[in-house]
Amino acid sequence: MTHTITSRVRYAETDQMGVVYHANYLPWMEMGRVEFFRALGHNYKDMEAAGTLMAVVEVQVRYHAPARYDDEITISTSILKSGSRGCTFHYEIRLATTTELLASGQTKHLFVGPDFKPARVPTPYRDVFVKSAS
Amino acid sequence: MTHTITSRVRYAETDQMGVVYHANYLPWMEMGRVEFFRALGHNYKDMEAAGTLMAVVEVQVRYHAPARYDDEITISTSILKSGSRGCTFHYEIRLATTTELLASGQTKHLFVGPDFKPARVPTPYRDVFVKSAS
Amino acid sequence: MTHTITSRVRYAETDQMGVVYHANYLPWMEMGRVEFFRALGHNYKDMEAAGTLMAVVEVQVRYHAPARYDDEITISTSILKSGSRGCTFHYEIRLATTTELLASGQTKHLFVGPDFKPARVPTPYRDVFVKSAS
Amino acid sequence: MTHTITSRVRYAETDQMGVVYHANYLPWMEMGRVEFFRALGHNYKDMEAAGTLMAVVEVQVRYHAPARYDDEITISTSILKSGSRGCTFHYEIRLATTTELLASGQTKHLFVGPDFKPARVPTPYRDVFVKSAS
Repeated sequence: MTHTITSRVRYAETDQMGVVYHANYLPWMEMGRVEFFRALGHNYKDMEAAGTLMAVVEVQVRYHAPARYDDEITISTSILKSGSRGCTFHYEIRLATTTELLASGQTKHLFVGPDFKPARVPTPYRDVFVKSAS
Repeated sequence: MTHTITSRVRYAETDQMGVVYHANYLPWMEMGRVEFFRALGHNYKDMEAAGTLMAVVEVQVRYHAPARYDDEITISTSILKSGSRGCTFHYEIRLATTTELLASGQTKHLFVGPDFKPARVPTPYRDVFVKSAS
Repeated sequence: MTHTITSRVRYAETDQMGVVYHANYLPWMEMGRVEFFRALGHNYKDMEAAGTLMAVVEVQVRYHAPARYDDEITISTSILKSGSRGCTFHYEIRLATTTELLASGQTKHLFVGPDFKPARVPTPYRDVFVKSAS
Repeated sequence: MTHTITSRVRYAETDQMGVVYHANYLPWMEMGRVEFFRALGHNYKDMEAAGTLMAVVEVQVRYHAPARYDDEITISTSILKSGSRGCTFHYEIRLATTTELLASGQTKHLFVGPDFKPARVPTPYRDVFVKSAS
């Protein structure tokens, strides 16, 4: 399963090269993840409130072409791997008008409690990681 | 009492106008505030851990001249007003090399607990607000 | 004329108080401004490309209630004042579900060229500032 | 050659997990890179002004332990690979007090002109990439 959302580049996200600063693609991936949850009928906020956080333990991003101010972009999110201890999401960020690939990347997460010690995914959220893993 | 610190503009803080994005002056003021505390022998982190947060209820910033990438800047912080319920900080941000004024501003804070209800400043931190108010 | 858009709070926009960091309301106001332009049939990006930037010379924000992660918010934008040299926008940010006011503010802009010297608004964009001023 | 700088975690850099948001380690690596240049007697700002930008084409970060508000951290930067078309930097971010490793990562850069087409490193800056590569 791949879930795609659309967003628009903010002025705040650009830098003096005239393109989006590289760190600012990570919040876009976070948005992709959150909406992936919502598309499956769940809410990441509720999972956190229930005591399980998805701590980011690794990120990897390749920048293929620069995103620019006011560009409409698509963020496509899927689950690459999933287990009892954590999961890995994959993302593709494209220019909406042409579908040109701007960036691709992965984020690896560990399920932890508020104390950052390993935790289990509460039952109602398990299907997010089970059904949707490719 | 005015406390001055020095910092350097990050690439991440610029935008495509080739200058620092206006919102990015606010974390500089936050740095000024925190080091103001430290200069008085205290730690804002400890005050939060003791249960009193300084919620921001108002900010006002005037931008006089643009800060640019790699500029060394000074951030001067003082307390404008102080009472039992809250306080107001004043800031001046200058170019270190010329002392040219880049921005000036104020942040108004309310002392609250983690539940965002009014709280008292724990005793050891009171002198920050009492002695230093101009 | 008031133009309203909807957005959702990103995890990246929160801080350890569990609410949105105060500086992160300014990019929301920027989004409001940009979409205000678009609603009038124009594009701020094109105005910049035509050589006129809207440099921010003053901001003022009042925080009434904290915005939180995953909140759906509305950003309402209007023009408060407008002249040949600059303009002032007004904003109200509300919780979408209850319309509770979270923050209100103003940003004052000067029309400048890429050299930050005063510039005129190119003709096609003048109606944004003329027709819509309240 | 490894160059190490010290910085302090800003409140703005935390998120509601009570730790630093993962994207905010990338500006720290950028700071490490810039000071690495300066330690060799050069200025990245001048290299950009001379027409050569270091576009980020890939980043990879591993998060070993969370950085927290007000932590003093060290950022150690070295060059992993270097060629005529680009270079790769390596970073280690540690807690200053204990030297505990918080994050490690790499950023891969391509030398480009302001038009994002391949460019050569201007002569005076070549030693940064030649002498210092491990």
